Amino acid sequence: MTRFVEKISLFDRRSSPMAEAEDIARDGLLVYHHPLAPATTDAQAVTLGQLFKHVGDAHSGEGDDGDAAPPPHHVLELDEFSAGAGGGDHLSSRPPTFVLAFTNLSYSVKRPRKMSLFQRNRLATDPVAALAPPEAFSRTKTLLNSISGEAREGEIFAVLGASGSGKSTLIDALANRIVRDSLQGSITLNGEKLDGRLLKVISAYVMQDDLLYPMLTVEETLMFSAEFRLPRSLSVSKKKSRVQALIDQLGLRSAAKTIIGDEIHRGVSGGERRRVSIGIDIIHDPIILFLDEPTSGLDSTSAFMVVKVLQRIAHSGSIVIMSVHQPSYRILCLLDRLLFLSRGQTVYSGPPEGLHRFFSDFGHPIPDNENPTEFALDLIRELEGTPAGARSLVEFNKSRQDEQPALVPAARSSLSLNDAIGASISRGKLVSGTTEGTTSASSVQKYANPFWIEMGVLTKRSFTNTKRMPELFAIRLAAVLLTGFILATIFWRLDNSPKGVQERLGFFAIAMSTMFYTCADALPIFLQERNIFMRETAYNAYRRSSYVLSHAIVGFPPLILLSVAFALTTYFAVGLAGGMQGFVFFVLIILASFWAGSGFVTFLSGVVTHVMLGYTVVVAILAYFLLFSGFFINRDRIHDYWIWFHYLSLVKYPYEAVMQNEFDDRHKCFVRGVQMFDNTPLGVLPDAIKLRVLKSMSNSLGVNITSRTCITTGTDILKQQSITQLSKWDCLWVTVAWGFLFRFLFYISLLLGSRNKRR
Amino acid sequence: MTRFVEKISLFDRRSSPMAEAEDIARDGLLVYHHPLAPATTDAQAVTLGQLFKHVGDAHSGEGDDGDAAPPPHHVLELDEFSAGAGGGDHLSSRPPTFVLAFTNLSYSVKRPRKMSLFQRNRLATDPVAALAPPEAFSRTKTLLNSISGEAREGEIFAVLGASGSGKSTLIDALANRIVRDSLQGSITLNGEKLDGRLLKVISAYVMQDDLLYPMLTVEETLMFSAEFRLPRSLSVSKKKSRVQALIDQLGLRSAAKTIIGDEIHRGVSGGERRRVSIGIDIIHDPIILFLDEPTSGLDSTSAFMVVKVLQRIAHSGSIVIMSVHQPSYRILCLLDRLLFLSRGQTVYSGPPEGLHRFFSDFGHPIPDNENPTEFALDLIRELEGTPAGARSLVEFNKSRQDEQPALVPAARSSLSLNDAIGASISRGKLVSGTTEGTTSASSVQKYANPFWIEMGVLTKRSFTNTKRMPELFAIRLAAVLLTGFILATIFWRLDNSPKGVQERLGFFAIAMSTMFYTCADALPIFLQERNIFMRETAYNAYRRSSYVLSHAIVGFPPLILLSVAFALTTYFAVGLAGGMQGFVFFVLIILASFWAGSGFVTFLSGVVTHVMLGYTVVVAILAYFLLFSGFFINRDRIHDYWIWFHYLSLVKYPYEAVMQNEFDDRHKCFVRGVQMFDNTPLGVLPDAIKLRVLKSMSNSLGVNITSRTCITTGTDILKQQSITQLSKWDCLWVTVAWGFLFRFLFYISLLLGSRNKRR
Repeated sequence: MTRFVEKISLFDRRSSPMAEAEDIARDGLLVYHHPLAPATTDAQAVTLGQLFKHVGDAHSGEGDDGDAAPPPHHVLELDEFSAGAGGGDHLSSRPPTFVLAFTNLSYSVKRPRKMSLFQRNRLATDPVAALAPPEAFSRTKTLLNSISGEAREGEIFAVLGASGSGKSTLIDALANRIVRDSLQGSITLNGEKLDGRLLKVISAYVMQDDLLYPMLTVEETLMFSAEFRLPRSLSVSKKKSRVQALIDQLGLRSAAKTIIGDEIHRGVSGGERRRVSIGIDIIHDPIILFLDEPTSGLDSTSAFMVVKVLQRIAHSGSIVIMSVHQPSYRILCLLDRLLFLSRGQTVYSGPPEGLHRFFSDFGHPIPDNENPTEFALDLIRELEGTPAGARSLVEFNKSRQDEQPALVPAARSSLSLNDAIGASISRGKLVSGTTEGTTSASSVQKYANPFWIEMGVLTKRSFTNTKRMPELFAIRLAAVLLTGFILATIFWRLDNSPKGVQERLGFFAIAMSTMFYTCADALPIFLQERNIFMRETAYNAYRRSSYVLSHAIVGFPPLILLSVAFALTTYFAVGLAGGMQGFVFFVLIILASFWAGSGFVTFLSGVVTHVMLGYTVVVAILAYFLLFSGFFINRDRIHDYWIWFHYLSLVKYPYEAVMQNEFDDRHKCFVRGVQMFDNTPLGVLPDAIKLRVLKSMSNSLGVNITSRTCITTGTDILKQQSITQLSKWDCLWVTVAWGFLFRFLFYISLLLGSRNKRR
Repeated sequence: MTRFVEKISLFDRRSSPMAEAEDIARDGLLVYHHPLAPATTDAQAVTLGQLFKHVGDAHSGEGDDGDAAPPPHHVLELDEFSAGAGGGDHLSSRPPTFVLAFTNLSYSVKRPRKMSLFQRNRLATDPVAALAPPEAFSRTKTLLNSISGEAREGEIFAVLGASGSGKSTLIDALANRIVRDSLQGSITLNGEKLDGRLLKVISAYVMQDDLLYPMLTVEETLMFSAEFRLPRSLSVSKKKSRVQALIDQLGLRSAAKTIIGDEIHRGVSGGERRRVSIGIDIIHDPIILFLDEPTSGLDSTSAFMVVKVLQRIAHSGSIVIMSVHQPSYRILCLLDRLLFLSRGQTVYSGPPEGLHRFFSDFGHPIPDNENPTEFALDLIRELEGTPAGARSLVEFNKSRQDEQPALVPAARSSLSLNDAIGASISRGKLVSGTTEGTTSASSVQKYANPFWIEMGVLTKRSFTNTKRMPELFAIRLAAVLLTGFILATIFWRLDNSPKGVQERLGFFAIAMSTMFYTCADALPIFLQERNIFMRETAYNAYRRSSYVLSHAIVGFPPLILLSVAFALTTYFAVGLAGGMQGFVFFVLIILASFWAGSGFVTFLSGVVTHVMLGYTVVVAILAYFLLFSGFFINRDRIHDYWIWFHYLSLVKYPYEAVMQNEFDDRHKCFVRGVQMFDNTPLGVLPDAIKLRVLKSMSNSLGVNITSRTCITTGTDILKQQSITQLSKWDCLWVTVAWGFLFRFLFYISLLLGSRNKRR
């Protein structure tokens, strides 16, 4: 017990009564303030199962938002359990339930040829490049070189090292994020081989980036996560209780009703955001928690609070495994077991307390007042700069590990994996995908919810987030209205002369392309959402299909408004034909274009992940679509080797649809009598002469052509433009079908793209 | 001397002979390795003037790149000087030459209304928002509240605090980056008010971002900086010596020949890059050096080395003033004077050693092993969370400052400002813009070099950087060739029929727009360069005009290649008219379009600084240019209220030029005999009937029209398209003139945009 109390008192050194009360109100991190009663410090780090035992009436739990103090009966019930798992020294009192052991893990990658190309930039005179070990230029690189270790329940296992030392790779290897065939060595939980599917259910992996919906509150964010990951059999009120308990455990009570925020919208702080990210992944109270540099980008106070939260999670009965670049001294005190890596090799493995002894035995004692990890990393860096590298340290560490083999067997868990998981479930752990009371590890389901519930939750979440950002829709609406206004004033009340026909063609080509270009502007939003999706489907939060569908459903209503807005601005101003019926079709085909266009951009966001590149690609492809739409060159004039692209052109179908909506009328006349000479040199002659010519023409043809005779009807124009294959309704359906096809392709791209395992 | 030796020995604790030798080879940071001889540790931190005394033959200095050990005569000469300025305790031995003092600095800004709009997102139930002090909602915000302090030569003065505490604002205020009228309080150097122009010459400001040309080596980057900032009177060999000395001072010897690098090209490390950024700004050995968080984003080893370099700069006779977020313990030991800020108020001011005493007197002693700055920042943060804020600490600090007023007058420099600057210049400091031997502070020039030298250097630098990234040009060339290929195959060998004419029109409209769209892809590069430019002109490294001109000169040659490539791909394949002469004009007008387009994009990069927004704006504006070019709607059909935009349309002029190049031929026929009926219902009749109609027409007109008679010549087509106002050469010159105009507007935007002072 000594070590634990020592730690607590270290962090409690400034607690005047005033500051203490403030701390509680601000962060809900009660753990600071009871140095003499370790059994109660983890009162909030209660497992879900324990919670369920006592929260009969969920309503009473919801009300007391402001009060972070745990109900007393929890503390009473928990005494026995938390005395074992809550203290830092529980290893000596009873063996841990879970032990994750890995032995001789090795992993190499083939270097792409490109790398050596870049190395040429380090010019030939560079002495360091010349000194570098020959292995740096060989074709394979060893990222992990025979790494062994053991992470135990109740402890934080930290992997340290410089960037490029293999920290993230090791975490990935343990979290089954590297294809098993590429990885050598064994990973066991309680001595049994870990099945990948089981690991996915009992573990969580927290990525370095905070990918969250910016306009949801902290509470909403966690609640949606609960709906995805907690089993359907749990009632909503129990899910709510879990979220409330988690908010306290994460110290997020005061920020619970605040939105996450983004660059424009002020939200929670960086440290709070990181804790929300962690909360999302531990909503199901996982047995093993992996974190890739959870403190990066945070100031030291926020970083400390994040690790403090991780300690509480560990004490609630989890294995916490994290990588960390350079922990501050206070964070170091929270870590139970360290593994220092240098270029994929272990240079130290053991508790933080052992560092002083280790380095003084190695001949480089750590000076007083110096942060031991900073010292160690500097020394490693220094050694790496020498021709021999850190080999001396690696070998020194090996020899020491060989001297103390006694430690390892002592830590072995006495329970078999199935028994341990069963015991853990009965305590309330591991509720993702399992039905309450199930004790068999093989009975876990892949998804917590059926398709329709996922759909509903996803739609609700996306809708909530969207409706809190009305400015995004406002910008799109403004762009559509502006373009509509400009087009309306340019093509103001077009006449039915030959020139008017040409201009109508131009108007339709531009208007239909604009619909697609407007969709391109939504690319960044799609890309951002895609990242959230990638994270969530990585742990099977929901089916990809329900995401694609709900994405389409939430995106559709705004398109209706945009379509009506554009049609209203242009249809009557330009003077398009067809009356009310024509207007309705005009709205429908614009809506279909938006639908197809947003589908196209959505699909591209699934394929191209870089914003600028994606935008360039969209603009270029849309330009080619316009080029091949039939406006610039008629279908019958397109060479055979390009005709396939004409049929692929998304712009073709809405363009032909509006053309038919406008011109498909045998009785409507666009060239009448002498107008037929408008685009010929005869156009400049006086009307009297043109009439005489017309008369002589009519005589020779044997048809009576007067100045009122219609020369070219709307139908004729369609024929001239080779718009003869599909009816306007066919064009509409084809456009709608394109929209569906692109969303299906988006689904396929997600299936193929989201295999986020290394090879 | 004790304190200094103590520090040195602290960092020297691991020096085995092997490691020591390695360190020298790796970083050239000799200062680690002579704990018992502090006088020689700063042998490399030699001022430029001292260097010039001894580097008679620059050639011998250039040769020994690998050997970082300083020539022994430096050390001998420097003994007397460095014993005074080199040690940490020199304050007691002689007064510092320079003292920058600031008294009661206050600065407030009016809050925009927008802020309160965003605050609504913190939902009403949020207890923290309700607790926040009322001042947070008022209309002005005090960023600095009566801050006083003193920074001395030979010392590092560090401003600490949480983000938003006012660190950067204070640095900006001292560096004269805030408009003087908005700032209350006084800033003096050696007791005299500081003139802004003088400060610009004797100081340097290092920004947080590393804005460097990615493809230049470290040595080249510093050499270009030397050419900009060192006076013309210095010979090239002396500039080279200065760069070499600086490389050693910065510990960059081993990286000297390595390129800076970017995301794609591997270059120097983050810490090395930061040191290069510092080096650029201290090339002229400034008296005062301001740095905004120089260690942010660096790992602790790199951060330590950066601050170590700053210490050496201070010891060479400069005042170093920096902001720092959370220094590690080792960095803290390098700082001489600290100023802690909390919401714009001073909470501690004094040496690092005083922190323990200060906080124990305040009732919150710093525990052993705890980093004092971490502790202080946590405590400040905790206090800020209380309703009273950090007021108690602010007042405690005030009362203590009042108790010890004796410290302030003791530090006053005995020299007047002019004398001090004179003495400094005679020692070789402050060589930017001054002529050697000048001792008057008022004789400093604004720019170091005349216009033509700046032009030459800028052109050389930009060219060197560009030619090392051939892939950028290759991508643009590939895009132009691909578009050319697609256009060539679509519009393959167009005939001279009425449909062919229509397609030629389409081809020209697309081809000319493509030229402009291709330019848009260069926007990110322009934006990146613009940032470098902003930094450099902030300290008058060169004239804005020479930058604009050299930018245009370097960008031009690739455009010639692109123009020829596009013309070769399309001209003959489409079958354009005019033979060799027509081809040359086609190349010229494409070149002019590229010239105008790149000018347009360059101008936009000066106005819009966000990449995605800029790209969207360029694409939208180019679309409107195309819309108004005369292709979609002829000039004589454009309504009066839009005709101004037609003349503004950049696409209009090259479009009309190529149209005339193609069609301006009275003898070339595009509609001959019966072809005149092609776009009428008569087109489907058999040729015999069409000939009969033609005959009767010719009879009635009294003109003989046969099947071979030309109905529409090229000139007629131009008339139909209302292309009658400007000749093709006029169009070319107008396009070229647009290019010049946009570059002039770019220049204007730089003049207006680069006033980087706060108001």
